[in-house]
Amino acid sequence: MEAYKHQVHYYETDKMGFVHHSNYIRWFEEARTYFFEVIGAPYTLTESYGIISPVLSVECSYKKSCYYGETVLIRVTLEKVDNVRFYVSYKVTSQDGDLRAEGRSSHCFLDRNGRVVSLRRARPELFSKLKEFEGVTV
Amino acid sequence: MEAYKHQVHYYETDKMGFVHHSNYIRWFEEARTYFFEVIGAPYTLTESYGIISPVLSVECSYKKSCYYGETVLIRVTLEKVDNVRFYVSYKVTSQDGDLRAEGRSSHCFLDRNGRVVSLRRARPELFSKLKEFEGVTV
Amino acid sequence: MEAYKHQVHYYETDKMGFVHHSNYIRWFEEARTYFFEVIGAPYTLTESYGIISPVLSVECSYKKSCYYGETVLIRVTLEKVDNVRFYVSYKVTSQDGDLRAEGRSSHCFLDRNGRVVSLRRARPELFSKLKEFEGVTV
Amino acid sequence: MEAYKHQVHYYETDKMGFVHHSNYIRWFEEARTYFFEVIGAPYTLTESYGIISPVLSVECSYKKSCYYGETVLIRVTLEKVDNVRFYVSYKVTSQDGDLRAEGRSSHCFLDRNGRVVSLRRARPELFSKLKEFEGVTV
Repeated sequence: MEAYKHQVHYYETDKMGFVHHSNYIRWFEEARTYFFEVIGAPYTLTESYGIISPVLSVECSYKKSCYYGETVLIRVTLEKVDNVRFYVSYKVTSQDGDLRAEGRSSHCFLDRNGRVVSLRRARPELFSKLKEFEGVTV
Repeated sequence: MEAYKHQVHYYETDKMGFVHHSNYIRWFEEARTYFFEVIGAPYTLTESYGIISPVLSVECSYKKSCYYGETVLIRVTLEKVDNVRFYVSYKVTSQDGDLRAEGRSSHCFLDRNGRVVSLRRARPELFSKLKEFEGVTV
Repeated sequence: MEAYKHQVHYYETDKMGFVHHSNYIRWFEEARTYFFEVIGAPYTLTESYGIISPVLSVECSYKKSCYYGETVLIRVTLEKVDNVRFYVSYKVTSQDGDLRAEGRSSHCFLDRNGRVVSLRRARPELFSKLKEFEGVTV
Repeated sequence: MEAYKHQVHYYETDKMGFVHHSNYIRWFEEARTYFFEVIGAPYTLTESYGIISPVLSVECSYKKSCYYGETVLIRVTLEKVDNVRFYVSYKVTSQDGDLRAEGRSSHCFLDRNGRVVSLRRARPELFSKLKEFEGVTV
């Protein structure tokens, strides 16, 4: 499976001359979206069930800058899935593997009224799908 | 009434060293929000009626750059209100009046199903309020 | 030549449920970048000459909303190039051609000190390249 | 000293109906900028010395959502300063003290060529200023 690719946009840079750090958090989201598409459990499906998965925590460690004009890869690992949460990790590299940043995020499942949902009970088939891809990197 | 003030954020700059042009469109929205608050017709009220007012068109003409560390003023004029639309114009200046950009936007009223709403019929008191401030600049 | 494709990101939506209007201005930039790459005159080359091309004006007319989960096409036409400016137009459509938005932008050429540059004189070969693609849509 | 205030903008929300998580990272930057201004060591001064302070790491833990129409407070603590780095923590609350998010960031000092700078040696008076405010919350 091909890793998620992101071409760096001009509007993502700041006056230091390279990508503003907040954008990596957005790239994590792009790559996470891609991951769930690739494994056959797209967000749009989850949302069609009335389930959202907001971010509980996020962190990013910046190693080297990313520049306008380059394309970066963002590799996603679904670290762990339990009844009400999941944990994801990320690696941002240049196309030839130079590490730029690493990060992690955690998420819960909520219904439309903001109540925590046990995915195992609410959508067992989706839960099984996610469990199946625990530990997998795309 | 005091004009809307915006302090330029680092994340709003790009590698040219000054504010990225797309952010002015966001500042217009901030200033528009402020205008409707000041005249006593805040967006949150309109949205509580189930009415949204998406942007139909926007334009901006850039005169001089805005820099990190400065505070700009955004003056808003409610140019015209009719049953289903309104038209707004904007002037971005430095604190001492140096013109940085000018712009305009137009908006319609929609209900939750995306159907055009006649504000005059649906919410006559809100419509009157807006008409009262036609031509006013904050 | 294939049109520029943009997959709508979650962070590009707002509480109305579809893409925030300011992001189209950013998509125009993405597509413009792509256009200049495709014709062999990438921004990174222009910037390596010490020439930047800031936006003088931008406008967008919104026809229909864009949604998370879809991929849109942004077609770019290099409308006109003269010694110190160029003019671009944009059409945003769904993959099956449904029109979502239309826009235009104008740009000048500046050196590192913010002085207007005649591209014809400063970089005649780049100027010729752009003239060659006047009127072309990608 | 008054805490930094941020009014939630429409463009900061996403289709879940509340603020997109990436924007908290930007608010941290706004509040950090404010902190350094308040203590008399603004970024613009540091940058005028040819020193930038990029983010080495950032993390945020989300407790409750923030909504369009509200104003949040972001309290900043300068946790620690050493020769080449500093560490900051953040608390985002509603105006009446309801906790929304907590976070931290770390930063280094670099010169224009991207080389690590010892602030103590390069700018002893700025270093002393920062040390003086170690542990202080604004």
